[in-house]
Amino acid sequence: MPGNSFGNFFRITTWGESHGKALGVVIDGCPAGLSLTDKDIQFELDRRKPGQSILTSQRKEDDKVQILSGLFKNKTTGAPISMIVHNIDVISKSYEDFKDMYRPGHADLTYDEKYGLRDYRGGGRSSNRETVGRVAAGAVAKKILNKMGIKTYGYVCQIGNVKIEKIDFKYIEKNPLRCPDKNKSKEMSSIIDNVRREGDSIGGVIEVRTIGLPAGLGSPVFNKIDARLASSIMSIGGVRGFEIGMGFSISEKKGSEVNDIMIGKKKGKVVFSSNNAGGILGGITNGQDLILRFALKPTSSISKPQKSINKSGKVRNLKIKGRHDPCLCPRAVPIAEAMVNLVLIDAIFENKLSKIENLF
Amino acid sequence: MPGNSFGNFFRITTWGESHGKALGVVIDGCPAGLSLTDKDIQFELDRRKPGQSILTSQRKEDDKVQILSGLFKNKTTGAPISMIVHNIDVISKSYEDFKDMYRPGHADLTYDEKYGLRDYRGGGRSSNRETVGRVAAGAVAKKILNKMGIKTYGYVCQIGNVKIEKIDFKYIEKNPLRCPDKNKSKEMSSIIDNVRREGDSIGGVIEVRTIGLPAGLGSPVFNKIDARLASSIMSIGGVRGFEIGMGFSISEKKGSEVNDIMIGKKKGKVVFSSNNAGGILGGITNGQDLILRFALKPTSSISKPQKSINKSGKVRNLKIKGRHDPCLCPRAVPIAEAMVNLVLIDAIFENKLSKIENLF
Amino acid sequence: MPGNSFGNFFRITTWGESHGKALGVVIDGCPAGLSLTDKDIQFELDRRKPGQSILTSQRKEDDKVQILSGLFKNKTTGAPISMIVHNIDVISKSYEDFKDMYRPGHADLTYDEKYGLRDYRGGGRSSNRETVGRVAAGAVAKKILNKMGIKTYGYVCQIGNVKIEKIDFKYIEKNPLRCPDKNKSKEMSSIIDNVRREGDSIGGVIEVRTIGLPAGLGSPVFNKIDARLASSIMSIGGVRGFEIGMGFSISEKKGSEVNDIMIGKKKGKVVFSSNNAGGILGGITNGQDLILRFALKPTSSISKPQKSINKSGKVRNLKIKGRHDPCLCPRAVPIAEAMVNLVLIDAIFENKLSKIENLF
Amino acid sequence: MPGNSFGNFFRITTWGESHGKALGVVIDGCPAGLSLTDKDIQFELDRRKPGQSILTSQRKEDDKVQILSGLFKNKTTGAPISMIVHNIDVISKSYEDFKDMYRPGHADLTYDEKYGLRDYRGGGRSSNRETVGRVAAGAVAKKILNKMGIKTYGYVCQIGNVKIEKIDFKYIEKNPLRCPDKNKSKEMSSIIDNVRREGDSIGGVIEVRTIGLPAGLGSPVFNKIDARLASSIMSIGGVRGFEIGMGFSISEKKGSEVNDIMIGKKKGKVVFSSNNAGGILGGITNGQDLILRFALKPTSSISKPQKSINKSGKVRNLKIKGRHDPCLCPRAVPIAEAMVNLVLIDAIFENKLSKIENLF
Repeated sequence: MPGNSFGNFFRITTWGESHGKALGVVIDGCPAGLSLTDKDIQFELDRRKPGQSILTSQRKEDDKVQILSGLFKNKTTGAPISMIVHNIDVISKSYEDFKDMYRPGHADLTYDEKYGLRDYRGGGRSSNRETVGRVAAGAVAKKILNKMGIKTYGYVCQIGNVKIEKIDFKYIEKNPLRCPDKNKSKEMSSIIDNVRREGDSIGGVIEVRTIGLPAGLGSPVFNKIDARLASSIMSIGGVRGFEIGMGFSISEKKGSEVNDIMIGKKKGKVVFSSNNAGGILGGITNGQDLILRFALKPTSSISKPQKSINKSGKVRNLKIKGRHDPCLCPRAVPIAEAMVNLVLIDAIFENKLSKIENLF
Repeated sequence: MPGNSFGNFFRITTWGESHGKALGVVIDGCPAGLSLTDKDIQFELDRRKPGQSILTSQRKEDDKVQILSGLFKNKTTGAPISMIVHNIDVISKSYEDFKDMYRPGHADLTYDEKYGLRDYRGGGRSSNRETVGRVAAGAVAKKILNKMGIKTYGYVCQIGNVKIEKIDFKYIEKNPLRCPDKNKSKEMSSIIDNVRREGDSIGGVIEVRTIGLPAGLGSPVFNKIDARLASSIMSIGGVRGFEIGMGFSISEKKGSEVNDIMIGKKKGKVVFSSNNAGGILGGITNGQDLILRFALKPTSSISKPQKSINKSGKVRNLKIKGRHDPCLCPRAVPIAEAMVNLVLIDAIFENKLSKIENLF
Repeated sequence: MPGNSFGNFFRITTWGESHGKALGVVIDGCPAGLSLTDKDIQFELDRRKPGQSILTSQRKEDDKVQILSGLFKNKTTGAPISMIVHNIDVISKSYEDFKDMYRPGHADLTYDEKYGLRDYRGGGRSSNRETVGRVAAGAVAKKILNKMGIKTYGYVCQIGNVKIEKIDFKYIEKNPLRCPDKNKSKEMSSIIDNVRREGDSIGGVIEVRTIGLPAGLGSPVFNKIDARLASSIMSIGGVRGFEIGMGFSISEKKGSEVNDIMIGKKKGKVVFSSNNAGGILGGITNGQDLILRFALKPTSSISKPQKSINKSGKVRNLKIKGRHDPCLCPRAVPIAEAMVNLVLIDAIFENKLSKIENLF
Repeated sequence: MPGNSFGNFFRITTWGESHGKALGVVIDGCPAGLSLTDKDIQFELDRRKPGQSILTSQRKEDDKVQILSGLFKNKTTGAPISMIVHNIDVISKSYEDFKDMYRPGHADLTYDEKYGLRDYRGGGRSSNRETVGRVAAGAVAKKILNKMGIKTYGYVCQIGNVKIEKIDFKYIEKNPLRCPDKNKSKEMSSIIDNVRREGDSIGGVIEVRTIGLPAGLGSPVFNKIDARLASSIMSIGGVRGFEIGMGFSISEKKGSEVNDIMIGKKKGKVVFSSNNAGGILGGITNGQDLILRFALKPTSSISKPQKSINKSGKVRNLKIKGRHDPCLCPRAVPIAEAMVNLVLIDAIFENKLSKIENLF
């Protein structure tokens, strides 16, 4: 199937380009009877939008969402939920200069190779603006998950080579960086501010943690929950690495050091002595917290002069103007949360069909 | 859709359990006219099977494949290709002792939670034996890719904390570890041999590199080639991390340091000054080598005594007998190659439909 | 997967309700490089809209389409094509009276049973207005097919018990009934006008014929082209029967009477002595004209008084006001053509991947 | 997706050719905990196999099924259920003579056009033997449905121009024709016997009725239950027409004549005065019996001499030997029942996800 849909049961299809008329998403498979209003969606879009601080792009994208279908008297009806956000603060002129240039680190070259043409205004479909649709759909998934007591928290855990040392969930949304460690937040923010002044950019790492999950989500083989999560996170622009639980560092360990030992049951739920597996065994949640991390490259668009080539292969000097994020991390948090929530809601639906007794 | 199929165009469905009658795979979507024999498949299965050296499990699994359908006079017909491998060296008795135990690091608990029962013999469907079907299907994909000049090489690049320092493609299959660095291979092998003697296990990292790829494979948004690769690799048992190109280390860098600069065109193909992106821009191949890495946890089954619980939550001593791999890496190489090849063949099909002119 | 998408390669997702804010469709998988404007779409929507004559509903639905994404400089880019039609002539008040009633022949009861609630305004998602999205998407498919010399003609071939006796393709769009037989058109139209005056409705049969098709479209087993066509046509509201070629009447015949005999080749194309099979052998087109027919029930909404029950099961008198089509046929023609074209374009894509040589 | 899979939730993939080594099916998505043995499957395969009477082919196909995976201690585990039937009574030699001939009414031409080559032994993949896999999978669906009180009955309702006049469910399996009307059965059987002696064949019509269905199965738009049923039935070889409820004859009626009137509720279930709709409203079951019919063409393989062409387009005399069914109807009954049951089980799964309250 084509590449703009995600999910098997709760399926979303996003559409729209950076400088087109609008962007949006259609959700197919949302059950009937869920209370939902524009506000539920707008709250998450506001977390994603640029211009929230000097740490992010200064573009003004108000991103007002409108729900066009699938609701009746503020309840979902089981029909597709179509949501739209009109593009407003669009300055396409600045891109005319680059229309034949291939910007380093961008999809300009590869879109041209694949499609023979491309919408060069603001990156077109390859723009981060495409995630507006994902965040809107994720807000619906989140609403259902929250009713089930399941909560997903994303936060910045590394900027450049500075790492967090503690996690205070309540502090995350209190700082524009979405860092859960007050001390480190300042240090990280000044790194970002410095690269911004230099006309450069910086990478980072985000961690996502979901609490309140039941055991049993995900399925063997190709739909392992970690495989689905990896796919969903790697589909976000600029992500270069993904890990679960201990992640890459587990490769240096012995089995006897990292096996999470089960030590009993409490209220019918298994208790573990550790969570090196990040809440997953054999691709299925085990009831512990789900923990994943992913690496974001530094933003490719930098205002520092660079060299690159044009369509004909000639080397040219390149000076990217625009208004770009010096670091992708702060705004990637709500996007990653949305993707995780979309994977989880799908797995919850799937899990309803795992036992014959559930059909009766 | 259920979780035992992979691929949109060249779609495989695997089936079978560790200690069942047989395992197999059905490929749906292989075009007609490809020359194919059992030998093409057997070659890859032999690379996957245990007992190749003391570095791997000493189980004897001959894994003789039989192609049951989809061929006529040694050519594919466009009909589904069904392949079967009968289970022979099955010793199920040793598992009766654990039937109520939840082994640490295994899917015992989560399968029980999800399905209410489980085939406890050898891990059942969660066993690494399931990958027999993947490797068989991957061999068909590989045959098509090789005809196109596309080659995928997997190799061990880290065991414990020892990392390779050079890559000699020719050496990979000359050592049972599948390490491309002769010096490091010895060091790594003795680490594995040591943990084996201790009744323990060790983790590692595998790198996969594909050369000869055209630009244009993969598609925007959810079917980004890196997202598909991540999903395919994370669906292999024991994988805890995945990265592309520079991977996690890119998060410490500035944009000006890591943007791959295009410096011209040669024979119509863009030349880059570096390959930090691992051959992918915006989720689409750029014509450079594809480079990915993934982290494998140490095998969960160790013969050292451990504690765990049974179904009722009672703590019990556990001594796993069986014949287990002290390190998952050597045998994971052909599995990973198979998954990468399956992703690539699917992307090649998809790419044939990207331009309107290709339809005529 | 949920039920609002159609097609594997050229995939459409429709959304919207009769009395909601808007209706629309997203096309995912349209190749890049196709010239396209609003006009291509509007032309087909105008054929579908009500109020074209006294034979159809007198509702005024202007159905102005807007393409929101997927185009750049009037060419498709390979990105999803989102199209929207705003609802304007919406009179929802008349439906308040029926909100607890189950109208005979309508989905009121079954939506309530399935979803526990329903949007009762104008049938909500079950309204024929949903086909606005299908017709818009079908117009894109049609544009590609026409470039390939493939043309699909739908026409009314029976109203009540009056059947056509000849087929004049040029006359179809010259009469509001879309009947290809001038004499019969008058007779049929007066039947419709009579039932309209009676406050009743009448059924009919539509035939669709596609000319210029290559051999090879469709595939064995579940994606037989006739299976796909049947599904696409039966998904239109009010359709109760579907047949290919000779259809039901073939069941009375002997093999020696109905086998289409091949009598030679002309310009590389097989020549047949007859076309009882309707252009399909083994689920794959044989190069002859594709011929199908389908039966439409009389419109369920009639202004004649009827009895029915409300939610509580109480019998009530029912008088449906609204402005309904006395016969579904004339407006079903462009909808059926759209569905046939969507099936064909998908099969053309699929067929590009049937031979290994096509990949090179 | 490729064409050898059917179903979204309870997904089957069939494989195998008429004269290959074996045929089979993989079911993915069967919930865990269902009691199942080879006998459940064999019973249905025995109903499908040829040689049951002089009304069907005299080939001997014992069709012994073996379940290879997905079961543990006679219960399904949630893992894929792989089933295999080995081909035994294979006489391929008789087909060598036709290897360059295109038999009338067969897929020889179209497979060659599509794939560039074909397995000409016994029709290869286009053979009716492919349905072995469908019937095996359908038996699993049937077992679940029967537990829910849902029963599907297929029966012959027309042979040539003779139609049944009454329906005695108990008589169906008591006559080799599977006709529910004792008197008509004899008349129909002698028609078949006559065409058999003539070396000819005859068509017919089959009706399928499902009783005990809940309301709410199926979904709006493209997954309407009638659209799914049409697709599933039209995917059976030789089917040329499909209808629901009154079917084609409804096109001659007025709305006031055919609207099924609801007259009250009994034990929470709506009572109707008639069932012209065949148990479906708006693509969703309404709790009445599901009633469908389909038309089968006369078998294309007849022993009477025919003319046809070979690959080069030269006209040749053709005398088909083999052992063919003089009428497709009797053996089509279990195949159609299987397809209907597969559609229903899928719809039952889907329906579990229609209301938000079902998730909790």
